[in-house]
Amino acid sequence: MTTVGIIVEYNPLHNGHEYHFEQSKKISNADAVIAVMSGNFLQRGEPSIVNKWARTEMALHMGADLVIELPVIYSSQPAEWFAFGAISALDATGIVDHLCFGSESGELEILQTLAKKLKEEPVRFGVEVKQQLKKGINYPAAYTSAIQKILPFEKSEHMDLSQPNNTLGLHYLIAIERLNSSIQPLTITRQKAGYHQQEVTDQRIASATAIRKLIFEKQNQSYFSQYMPNYTYEVLQREFQSGRGPIDWECLKDQLLYKLLSITPTECSHYFEVTEGLENRLKQTLPELHSDSSFSVTKLLDLLKTKRYTRTKLQRTLLRILLNHYKTDITIDKLKKGTPYLRVLGFSDKGQHLLKKMKKTSKVPIITKVNKNHTSLLEMDIRATSIYSLSYQNPSAKEMFQDYYQPPLILKQ
Amino acid sequence: MTTVGIIVEYNPLHNGHEYHFEQSKKISNADAVIAVMSGNFLQRGEPSIVNKWARTEMALHMGADLVIELPVIYSSQPAEWFAFGAISALDATGIVDHLCFGSESGELEILQTLAKKLKEEPVRFGVEVKQQLKKGINYPAAYTSAIQKILPFEKSEHMDLSQPNNTLGLHYLIAIERLNSSIQPLTITRQKAGYHQQEVTDQRIASATAIRKLIFEKQNQSYFSQYMPNYTYEVLQREFQSGRGPIDWECLKDQLLYKLLSITPTECSHYFEVTEGLENRLKQTLPELHSDSSFSVTKLLDLLKTKRYTRTKLQRTLLRILLNHYKTDITIDKLKKGTPYLRVLGFSDKGQHLLKKMKKTSKVPIITKVNKNHTSLLEMDIRATSIYSLSYQNPSAKEMFQDYYQPPLILKQ
Repeated sequence: MTTVGIIVEYNPLHNGHEYHFEQSKKISNADAVIAVMSGNFLQRGEPSIVNKWARTEMALHMGADLVIELPVIYSSQPAEWFAFGAISALDATGIVDHLCFGSESGELEILQTLAKKLKEEPVRFGVEVKQQLKKGINYPAAYTSAIQKILPFEKSEHMDLSQPNNTLGLHYLIAIERLNSSIQPLTITRQKAGYHQQEVTDQRIASATAIRKLIFEKQNQSYFSQYMPNYTYEVLQREFQSGRGPIDWECLKDQLLYKLLSITPTECSHYFEVTEGLENRLKQTLPELHSDSSFSVTKLLDLLKTKRYTRTKLQRTLLRILLNHYKTDITIDKLKKGTPYLRVLGFSDKGQHLLKKMKKTSKVPIITKVNKNHTSLLEMDIRATSIYSLSYQNPSAKEMFQDYYQPPLILKQ
Repeated sequence: MTTVGIIVEYNPLHNGHEYHFEQSKKISNADAVIAVMSGNFLQRGEPSIVNKWARTEMALHMGADLVIELPVIYSSQPAEWFAFGAISALDATGIVDHLCFGSESGELEILQTLAKKLKEEPVRFGVEVKQQLKKGINYPAAYTSAIQKILPFEKSEHMDLSQPNNTLGLHYLIAIERLNSSIQPLTITRQKAGYHQQEVTDQRIASATAIRKLIFEKQNQSYFSQYMPNYTYEVLQREFQSGRGPIDWECLKDQLLYKLLSITPTECSHYFEVTEGLENRLKQTLPELHSDSSFSVTKLLDLLKTKRYTRTKLQRTLLRILLNHYKTDITIDKLKKGTPYLRVLGFSDKGQHLLKKMKKTSKVPIITKVNKNHTSLLEMDIRATSIYSLSYQNPSAKEMFQDYYQPPLILKQ
């Protein structure tokens, strides 16, 4: 049985994702698909629009055979560690033959050349990034410039690394190199809607960002249903009607505000992602929120934003503070080890066979039921779920502790 | 000018407090009254029904000349440190001649004998308390038994130390001894309503506890107005109408729940008051809250309560977790130093003269305006105010940072 791995967020799952899914199966000639999916908190430092169980349901309906949770220490990271965590999970299964990822360029060979170069010359690259940062530009821009210096000119013309999926793809390839993984990469050129594209420009395809915008603007719901499969629409409707969404940062603003007010700058500086005096900037910025209006995360982000700190960097920082993740919780040493467990969120009939196989091949424990003696990383996922559940209109204890007793979702075909 | 010091919470100020105030002036023959008042969080580990500024207003209307805030590290403590903090503040002014406190017994001589004995034999007393605790009884009961063993029998008959104001009074006297203070103590027998008494039994006098109960039960407001001076009633009405009260623990339940869910048992054990494995009991108890009902602090307290942990002990523990006060923030060494500043909340014309005098006599800095280079203890008061303001129906940034710019209240007579 040939198995292809994909790395996803499904926030929410839409027609573009279906296209990617079908193409992945086709070009890899795979019989089964394993999806590594972010839990409740995503790469850009945001909560997902509906929780991980609802998004797992969508993935299973589409045809994914096994959905594994990307631990929260990796899920809200810049491309490098997000990619490393996800590839380490696919690699740990011991049964993934191919990785298939979308990229704006679709040029696997250039990305692979670059990945090898970066793996060989990490120090030179690091120095180059630092030099670019000194110019006062933000990290993504410095990163792109540094890569363009290292990559031979004629190739870099064809590779725009300011495109997020090119960068992610590059880091998947670097991770495969670093892990000496036998996974064979494949890429699909992304169609139509750019990752961050805010506006809808097509009858059937829109980016997840654009879809979320439509949802939060509470336009006529049939207006966004055309961009997603029917099962996504139905899961979303059910979740929204049950008061479990749509979730964005504002749904957690009370918790964030309390947290920010309760900590000292020194304590703040111990949180992961809080770098370069950001703790003082945070403490000074809070009183700037005007007295006549209520607090919002958007307003705070607007006040905090500088040339240097991108919105994504700031969101990730606020998220780590909210989730109570200290620098000592997320060290380079821990990250380098890769994910130490595979938390199963759901599976199909075929996925059940994969799991049986994985009992022999998996390099780490497979978790289908959380018991009390879990590792500290899994504990972080569980706490993240509890905190996420506080964003619901009516949080119940059932949802706060769902991770403890929720068995994997099973879709019979 | 003879000055009498009083130690108060005014939660809210009622007719019984007026009686105590008048008697204090009378028996001490004082011209001026200095009140040391708890800020927004009180001795039993609860938020005050309205904030410290509103309660200062009440105190000034009654005739207090100077209101000084008891720092939060002392204000939510068992009798020993609550008393020590408050006496250290009165002593630090350098101008307080008398202390006048209410007690159930009214027997100053017995309390003084006992205070001396406890000061002389702290080790024997400590051992005795520990032995009593081993019987499985709670701390207040063990404390009372230990004292009864040390006090000569014929005297202990007249001194019921399970009465909270006898115990507080005793600790005021011990603090005076420990600080070698020149303050002369006086006591007034408390009239009619016991401290914790829940029910109203008189036409004009009711305990603050009973009054708060009437307020929260939202009975006809004229029903509670008879137990308080008119100015209290008016201040309460204004605060309630502005969405700043009435405040109780439930108004901070979202922040508490988030905090409890976000910390690990290990981190929890670092908070002040978290003793004897209470961190595990807390973590285990949370999931017991039933799934079909919403979270409440009352329910949590009911689940946590044991023979050993009184409700007050548990409330103080939850409060320290909410306020983010670690064991390293509130060490015995810090507590023993007494309050390192006098934060002025309000004053009368006469109070202004007292302040002028205190510029020469005060043993610690007098704070009428908070600047940025404040001490870490004052920082804790400021954070406590910010967190308290989140209990309001519509918290505004103005209130979150009120401590930074609110000048002392001044009542012209």
